[in-house]
Amino acid sequence: MSFVIAIHGGAFESSREKFSLNSEKKIKLYIKNALKIGYNKLKQKEEGINVLESVLTYLEDCSLFNAGKGSKPNENLEYELEASIMNGLNLNFGTVSLIKNIKNPIKAAKKLMDIYQNLILVGNNADKFGKNNGLDIVSNNYFKANDLDEKSYINDAPKSGTIGCVILDQNKNLSAGVSTGGISNKIGGRLGDASLIGAGLYANNCSCAISCTGKGEIFIKNCLAYDLHSRIKYKNESLNKASNDVINKIEKGSGGFISLDKYGNLEMPFNTKGMVRGWVNEKGIAFINLFKEKEDYTPNEYKLE
Amino acid sequence: MSFVIAIHGGAFESSREKFSLNSEKKIKLYIKNALKIGYNKLKQKEEGINVLESVLTYLEDCSLFNAGKGSKPNENLEYELEASIMNGLNLNFGTVSLIKNIKNPIKAAKKLMDIYQNLILVGNNADKFGKNNGLDIVSNNYFKANDLDEKSYINDAPKSGTIGCVILDQNKNLSAGVSTGGISNKIGGRLGDASLIGAGLYANNCSCAISCTGKGEIFIKNCLAYDLHSRIKYKNESLNKASNDVINKIEKGSGGFISLDKYGNLEMPFNTKGMVRGWVNEKGIAFINLFKEKEDYTPNEYKLE
Repeated sequence: MSFVIAIHGGAFESSREKFSLNSEKKIKLYIKNALKIGYNKLKQKEEGINVLESVLTYLEDCSLFNAGKGSKPNENLEYELEASIMNGLNLNFGTVSLIKNIKNPIKAAKKLMDIYQNLILVGNNADKFGKNNGLDIVSNNYFKANDLDEKSYINDAPKSGTIGCVILDQNKNLSAGVSTGGISNKIGGRLGDASLIGAGLYANNCSCAISCTGKGEIFIKNCLAYDLHSRIKYKNESLNKASNDVINKIEKGSGGFISLDKYGNLEMPFNTKGMVRGWVNEKGIAFINLFKEKEDYTPNEYKLE
Repeated sequence: MSFVIAIHGGAFESSREKFSLNSEKKIKLYIKNALKIGYNKLKQKEEGINVLESVLTYLEDCSLFNAGKGSKPNENLEYELEASIMNGLNLNFGTVSLIKNIKNPIKAAKKLMDIYQNLILVGNNADKFGKNNGLDIVSNNYFKANDLDEKSYINDAPKSGTIGCVILDQNKNLSAGVSTGGISNKIGGRLGDASLIGAGLYANNCSCAISCTGKGEIFIKNCLAYDLHSRIKYKNESLNKASNDVINKIEKGSGGFISLDKYGNLEMPFNTKGMVRGWVNEKGIAFINLFKEKEDYTPNEYKLE
């Protein structure tokens, strides 16, 4: 049986020159490691929704992306994190927002879904839920990146850095997830599209799974994730056609997304200068890129060791 | 030029016998008053988006509905209110959630939209925004209904009581708004569909305006409001057909919605025992009902004095 996992590490508007070769290599290494985690688990027939949690947990911990450790602070220099997960099999979802103390927001979102089927929990109560359910609790300062090299990537290069994942597993189930610190210097108390089912992510086995990155409010007003689902379901469009139409509908520079349909077709469009992204399928064929394909140094597809 | 305003006061699963004739009369009176406010302003060519704010402010203040004064407490006996507004002309929106001290959450949502074009603000920061922008601030206990008669309606009868409004104004602009205290006894920190553009409300001049009431999570997982828009836009369905399909898609007992298309067509479907609802058009023809039409005592349409 076949499977596919795709990951993004954020759309960005920084030009190629802003990235040192070293930071580019490092970003690709982390994405590759995350893909390997997903590949090995999916090969063992683990459920996609659980694999997705593991993969995003790894990326939350690695401090190179704007999610979990490495998140960007709001205007008050506080960290307020968001994460969502959705299961395409039953449309169950879990969302945690304005998280200040849960080490891995994606774990809290998953736990919320496991316990309540469908729930959005915000602020202190979400942190408390994590604590009461045995998740690791950290101080708010934990989220600050402390590696100089990683910091330079985060501050200079991408304007985003949200992480996301979509999976088609061996049971043909689709799932989607996203985790973010939100736009840098955001207003305290702001919710982005990562908190909104239908805006920043969606998963439905009858159509597609999608995970977005970019300017949250633009994704929200266009219900971007659900719009992709609608075009496939109601206009009978292919994932390719629907993804092109969706990304062209929003203002240039807004962001991008990764999407998978039930047949395993994959699209990763963006209308920014770049988007950190990668995928691997059951044959171990992988792809990892930051910029538009012809601008990237690495080969487009290769065998994941 | 023509205009239409429709209002809902919540879907509910209580049978007819649970309502005293007095409480039914009172509910209808408030809806009628709200319709009059809207009618008079729309006739004067006021913008729909401003009229919507006035109408929902009136209903927030009247303590008979689960929004503003009269809201239902969460499991900790605290009041955490939500309100959203959306302009179909430019897709601008404003959402405030987990409000504890702003007297009129719908005013805060509107002010947020006016200042930021598109923003969701949650918790203390949303309350602070209201305060900094001159909105009336109250203690959390203000939201508790204190009239015995009103209390009995709130406690015994509807399980919901959210308020919402959709308007087509003389400039052919559509707008949608919603305000709620959320499901009674909800988990502290829970966000309902009233906070989610695309779930609890949506407005786009190219298709429709919709405002929902019911079990929030069901509306969220189905992106119900945006689904109506999608069916009209992508399947070219009439508002009537799309509204029927959407309400039949969700589990019986989930709730209902009010919707208007750009031609002024109106649909107010629900799959609960009842839904408080009313409308009036530019001719002053009005309709106010609580139950399915043939179960209701009052005539179906009449001239609003």
